[in-house]
Amino acid sequence: MSEEEGITVSKSENFSEWFTQVVFRGELADVRYGVQGFIVHMPWAFRILREIYRLLEEDVEEDGHEPFLFPTVIPEKSLLREKEHAGFAPDVFWVTRQGEHDMEEPVALRPTGETALYPMYSLWIRSYKDLPFKRYQSRITVFRNEKVTRPFLRGREFMFFETHDVFRTHDDAMVQIRRDMKTMENVAWEKLKLPSIFMQRPQWDKFKGADNTYASDTIMPDGKRNQMSSTHDLGHNFARAYDIKFIDDDGKEKFGWQTCFGPGVWRIMAALIGIHGDDQGLVLPAIVAPLQAVIVPIYFAEKAEQALAIRAYCLEIKKMLEEEMKITFDDSENTPGYKYNHWELRGVPLRIEVGPKELETKTLTTVRRTDRKREKVGVQNTVYEVKKQLAMVDAQIEERAQQYFLNNTKSAESFDELKTIIEEFRGFVKVPFCSMEMDGEECASKIKEETTADVCGTPFYDPETPKNKKCIVCGREAKTMAYVTKSY
Amino acid sequence: MSEEEGITVSKSENFSEWFTQVVFRGELADVRYGVQGFIVHMPWAFRILREIYRLLEEDVEEDGHEPFLFPTVIPEKSLLREKEHAGFAPDVFWVTRQGEHDMEEPVALRPTGETALYPMYSLWIRSYKDLPFKRYQSRITVFRNEKVTRPFLRGREFMFFETHDVFRTHDDAMVQIRRDMKTMENVAWEKLKLPSIFMQRPQWDKFKGADNTYASDTIMPDGKRNQMSSTHDLGHNFARAYDIKFIDDDGKEKFGWQTCFGPGVWRIMAALIGIHGDDQGLVLPAIVAPLQAVIVPIYFAEKAEQALAIRAYCLEIKKMLEEEMKITFDDSENTPGYKYNHWELRGVPLRIEVGPKELETKTLTTVRRTDRKREKVGVQNTVYEVKKQLAMVDAQIEERAQQYFLNNTKSAESFDELKTIIEEFRGFVKVPFCSMEMDGEECASKIKEETTADVCGTPFYDPETPKNKKCIVCGREAKTMAYVTKSY
Repeated sequence: MSEEEGITVSKSENFSEWFTQVVFRGELADVRYGVQGFIVHMPWAFRILREIYRLLEEDVEEDGHEPFLFPTVIPEKSLLREKEHAGFAPDVFWVTRQGEHDMEEPVALRPTGETALYPMYSLWIRSYKDLPFKRYQSRITVFRNEKVTRPFLRGREFMFFETHDVFRTHDDAMVQIRRDMKTMENVAWEKLKLPSIFMQRPQWDKFKGADNTYASDTIMPDGKRNQMSSTHDLGHNFARAYDIKFIDDDGKEKFGWQTCFGPGVWRIMAALIGIHGDDQGLVLPAIVAPLQAVIVPIYFAEKAEQALAIRAYCLEIKKMLEEEMKITFDDSENTPGYKYNHWELRGVPLRIEVGPKELETKTLTTVRRTDRKREKVGVQNTVYEVKKQLAMVDAQIEERAQQYFLNNTKSAESFDELKTIIEEFRGFVKVPFCSMEMDGEECASKIKEETTADVCGTPFYDPETPKNKKCIVCGREAKTMAYVTKSY
Repeated sequence: MSEEEGITVSKSENFSEWFTQVVFRGELADVRYGVQGFIVHMPWAFRILREIYRLLEEDVEEDGHEPFLFPTVIPEKSLLREKEHAGFAPDVFWVTRQGEHDMEEPVALRPTGETALYPMYSLWIRSYKDLPFKRYQSRITVFRNEKVTRPFLRGREFMFFETHDVFRTHDDAMVQIRRDMKTMENVAWEKLKLPSIFMQRPQWDKFKGADNTYASDTIMPDGKRNQMSSTHDLGHNFARAYDIKFIDDDGKEKFGWQTCFGPGVWRIMAALIGIHGDDQGLVLPAIVAPLQAVIVPIYFAEKAEQALAIRAYCLEIKKMLEEEMKITFDDSENTPGYKYNHWELRGVPLRIEVGPKELETKTLTTVRRTDRKREKVGVQNTVYEVKKQLAMVDAQIEERAQQYFLNNTKSAESFDELKTIIEEFRGFVKVPFCSMEMDGEECASKIKEETTADVCGTPFYDPETPKNKKCIVCGREAKTMAYVTKSY
């Protein structure tokens, strides 16, 4: 392959171009497949995504969800059965021909699971003893007829994960919604170091067919909101449409209370790239890194014997470490400089350099991906020291992400102030706002028109109640503090 | 849920009905989804399938394959580019509409990967240094417009796994084909205890666009061949059609030699059900069993205090074992008899019974799924003894499968003899045959017409060469020994 191109723009100056370069030059995705919005997930990205899936699978199974797998296609009549949801129809792709014949009934490529799953739930759920009923699908893709597409942010086919649960009471459903948020905390924050705020969406921006929508919102470095997951309180809406009923212990037939939870695996990937990355490319927490360390030998052409000794020493180091971490020895023909750039662009947390000096002193030099700090490590402590350096990289990623997110919210007391702040500030702007019910939609539209920003909702935990404040748009009494930001 | 139905037919008397009952009553698949040939993979089956995938992934990665993920759809022009392969067109489903509009270019739902992957391979492969190029896709589904469908045997959407490799020389490609067969030996035989023969298919029955097709064939209890995997020597056929070329170290541009390997994850599942199962239902090797052991308490209604003590004792046993194996304590309201049937139908290798006698003597009783032999185990040796019993079940499954497959091949010296044997015998019938090249097709057609059986090919390893024998159909000199059997 030809000489590799590194990242040529600064993340802070041109985030959009930086993101594109990381995705293509870092070989995460290839968009030359020939169908707009359908991309090839390249090995490096696929390995990262697979780890994210594994973390999510572990967490929801720990919480009692069983995995299953539904067809990729949805019969037209199922898709259209729930009226609110039928709003999906303009957004779906339709399979209309088999071989050379038109199909009797066209089927849709699933835009999400509800309308596929719930007709079967109606057959499976009979008694309160079947509840709670908790299932999920993982490592699937879904399809939407999006106009503008971008790898990991918006696609016509993209990677998906969804849980779909049925409960006896609404209280049980609300407990689950809190548990779903805990999954995001466990996976996105604890494991991947991606900070977010759990929002309750306004009524006009909730999922079609839900009573309420909750979401885990993070902020990308360009100041735009990235919704990393959503959880829906479906109430009885789908249960009524799809006839999901159970006989309770009082002998009465009742509708099930439903929730569903969808971490956007693509969106999490986008946050991972955008939030942790730097001007050299990706920066990966050890847990999702396809390789956690790479050994780079430093040979001198004129010293063949020494090169052989260095090579043997590198292999010895690799052998010591490979039980403990995912490590490779890059013994390709490329120059050390090329290798440094290559692995930095891909976000490998730790580089281990081994040259004549290291060979002579029986040491190795570690270089952290985060701050590029070099450490000399004695060979007798290799395993302990290298693991310590790896943990250090993780700690630095966490620290940096926390700092990044710390001052993510400003306040504005007037529409003008909001406009001024939103121009410059990359985060949420908190404003007194009339209402998150449908009667607030008009004010949100005005904000959208004049700032291009959205009212995302209010934090689910400890929402602030404004005292004696007026809505910055209509001047009515402010019932809530709205979080406003631009979004993708 | 209502009282569970067990298996009511004998596997040896009516295999087809037995298979159907195991699939539905064992809750492996649900066919009531509403689109013919598209099924719901239920949790128990999905967990088994996921383990099979994991074993395959581990094995092909060990062999240097990198995972990636391609779109589910294939542009029409890519699908039609390879002429031999274009034969697929009548078998595919077409996506023709997005939202309310007809698409400018319809796309096909992938029937298999070649035509999707190879246009990209053409972009990626440049130099001999890029070779061997070894990639795979896992946990994906593919789509075919089949007429007759049956869970795990033939579907319109079914679970798939595929490797696609490019080599510098044909020798390298042949080494890979042997390695692919080794994967089947490692996974299907060593891990899942499913015996098979590696066949080289006749020229008229090879994969469209391949120079040669090799397959891992097993025999189902109804005597039909089940092709658990296939590996194709693609020669330069696709490389020419999709322009997959590299600059060799002599500076010349050459076509890549390609192979692809597809273990049929569904077909492996069908073999697992059919070959190991018995009149009570599934029988699972420990490695793929979603639960390896189940603890069933035996309470007596009138003795509440004793029941509490038994329950506590069960939990103690579970605690001892749960680090070592996947185990559950079935404390549901159902009767012990119901529980025995329920878990036997699902193939759990080991049952642990705990009643008053076990409580009193501080023992537990294990019952093996295979021969239902009961063993008393002292509580002080629990972990060791239970693991030993689990290993015993695996050994019995292996022994039984080996016995089953041992006398799988008979010989016939004449067409009449073949007809007589094929009526009764459930296995391969070996016959002197004129040719596996295209000039043998007519004789194979005659066999098919008169016996409904197929010429599957000849074993890849140590094929027998007939001496002074005539083809049983045309009477020409027999160049080969053909293996004949019915297939799905």
